[in-house]
Amino acid sequence: MEQALDKYLTPADEYPQELHEAMRYSVFSGGKRLRPILFLGTYEMLLGRKNINRLERLMPAACALEFVHTASLIHDDLPSIDNAPERRGMPSCHVKFGTATAILAGDALITKAVEILTEINNKKVALNCIQIITKAMSTRGMIGGQAVDILSSKKKITINTLRYINLKKTGALLQASVELACAIFGAEENVAITLGNFSLNIGLAYQIVDDILDEVGSFEILGKEPGEDYRNNKSTYPALLGLEKAKKTAEKLLRDSYNLVKNMPNNDVLVEYVNMIKERLP
Amino acid sequence: MEQALDKYLTPADEYPQELHEAMRYSVFSGGKRLRPILFLGTYEMLLGRKNINRLERLMPAACALEFVHTASLIHDDLPSIDNAPERRGMPSCHVKFGTATAILAGDALITKAVEILTEINNKKVALNCIQIITKAMSTRGMIGGQAVDILSSKKKITINTLRYINLKKTGALLQASVELACAIFGAEENVAITLGNFSLNIGLAYQIVDDILDEVGSFEILGKEPGEDYRNNKSTYPALLGLEKAKKTAEKLLRDSYNLVKNMPNNDVLVEYVNMIKERLP
Repeated sequence: MEQALDKYLTPADEYPQELHEAMRYSVFSGGKRLRPILFLGTYEMLLGRKNINRLERLMPAACALEFVHTASLIHDDLPSIDNAPERRGMPSCHVKFGTATAILAGDALITKAVEILTEINNKKVALNCIQIITKAMSTRGMIGGQAVDILSSKKKITINTLRYINLKKTGALLQASVELACAIFGAEENVAITLGNFSLNIGLAYQIVDDILDEVGSFEILGKEPGEDYRNNKSTYPALLGLEKAKKTAEKLLRDSYNLVKNMPNNDVLVEYVNMIKERLP
Repeated sequence: MEQALDKYLTPADEYPQELHEAMRYSVFSGGKRLRPILFLGTYEMLLGRKNINRLERLMPAACALEFVHTASLIHDDLPSIDNAPERRGMPSCHVKFGTATAILAGDALITKAVEILTEINNKKVALNCIQIITKAMSTRGMIGGQAVDILSSKKKITINTLRYINLKKTGALLQASVELACAIFGAEENVAITLGNFSLNIGLAYQIVDDILDEVGSFEILGKEPGEDYRNNKSTYPALLGLEKAKKTAEKLLRDSYNLVKNMPNNDVLVEYVNMIKERLP
């Protein structure tokens, strides 16, 4: 995965260097590669075995997911959006390279994600993958979720709006991760729908757990200072539902997620995904 | 063209409204549609007649060009980049909708451009078009040119760097306009190369004329207050070469452009394109 990301990114010494450095800085800043892992885990499950032949042919989709995710983090951290000085314990892209370069680095990573998807051999599958990733990014996906998040900040919002934000901002790209696996494998429609629901459930659960940790967690678990949402006056699940009910909601979503895939053979990575989120729950 | 742009954009009353309004505001703010015109003019010329059958099948590429161009203007105008309060005599996107929404509107227009290209019927052509537009946007194209422009601001730069900025920042998308026409028509390689050179020449000429107008033009011709480059301490062709030599360079580029297409039948739009730039020269 790391090799493939490196291969697709333009070398840092190529002109204009600062821009290529900024892209690489953010891609290689300790991301957990959760989306590529979900994509590859889903593909393995569909395939029914661990040994994926010619793994490199899955790398365009795996890397595209990571590039889009990184672009969204760079733009979210900008002073005019979340104004986050740090990301994963390091200076944010705009702190390190300046706001202008950070904006362009995000744009360039979106562009790069699409560009590498055109390299998928089967043209029908390639176009399908590009449709999946653009839908996930669009105003009806990630960008829409981020817009509602911005427009809702410092306002009291309903649980439905919060659900919308999380389903779109976090869920859309997780959904794309399993959809890409289904498209490339050629999964049956009903399997694709089940897995789509799985991804939306875990996306929502992940976000609720993150909100809970922001209230009661520590820097070690969270990877950032807790209490930020509270200080930013952000509506969160614990704020709207109370801590206990938020916890119960997350647990139910994780149980539902598990039930959706428990009978599928070779579901190890997906089950582990569910457990990983569950283990973060305090 | 205007109908097609409207059709592809999400309605302004769809949630989140502010984001869709911001996208529409910038797309429908009096743009001259120079890239779609170049694209359609090139296609007409390749076809050898004025009557394009089923014109609507060319609209994905025509609109994609305009969406990418608009996205670049929104992001260029941002406070951290050119900090331009106005565009075409109206408040810039970020002034009207806030910086956060403007950043997302630009991201969404890039995404939309790619999304609509996937609608082109012939899958091979669709992928080819997506490759052309991502190449034009990439760090080796428009985004790279913009990055060098930012990194060069308030610095003394060489004529080669200025040429690089213009070839990439303005030229890359004009080049994509003719490349898309060639790809969809299925033009022969040598014709495509000639037209590619034509587009780079007129892109450079357009930029030099713009620089000259910034020194000696009026608000009416320029569509914005002249002298901005000078006040921003920007390196321009007249600043580096002197007014007379800059003018001669533009004239030569326009002559070369004309010579590249003068013997092609049905070249009206392209010749008019050259003349339109020439007429702006004071």
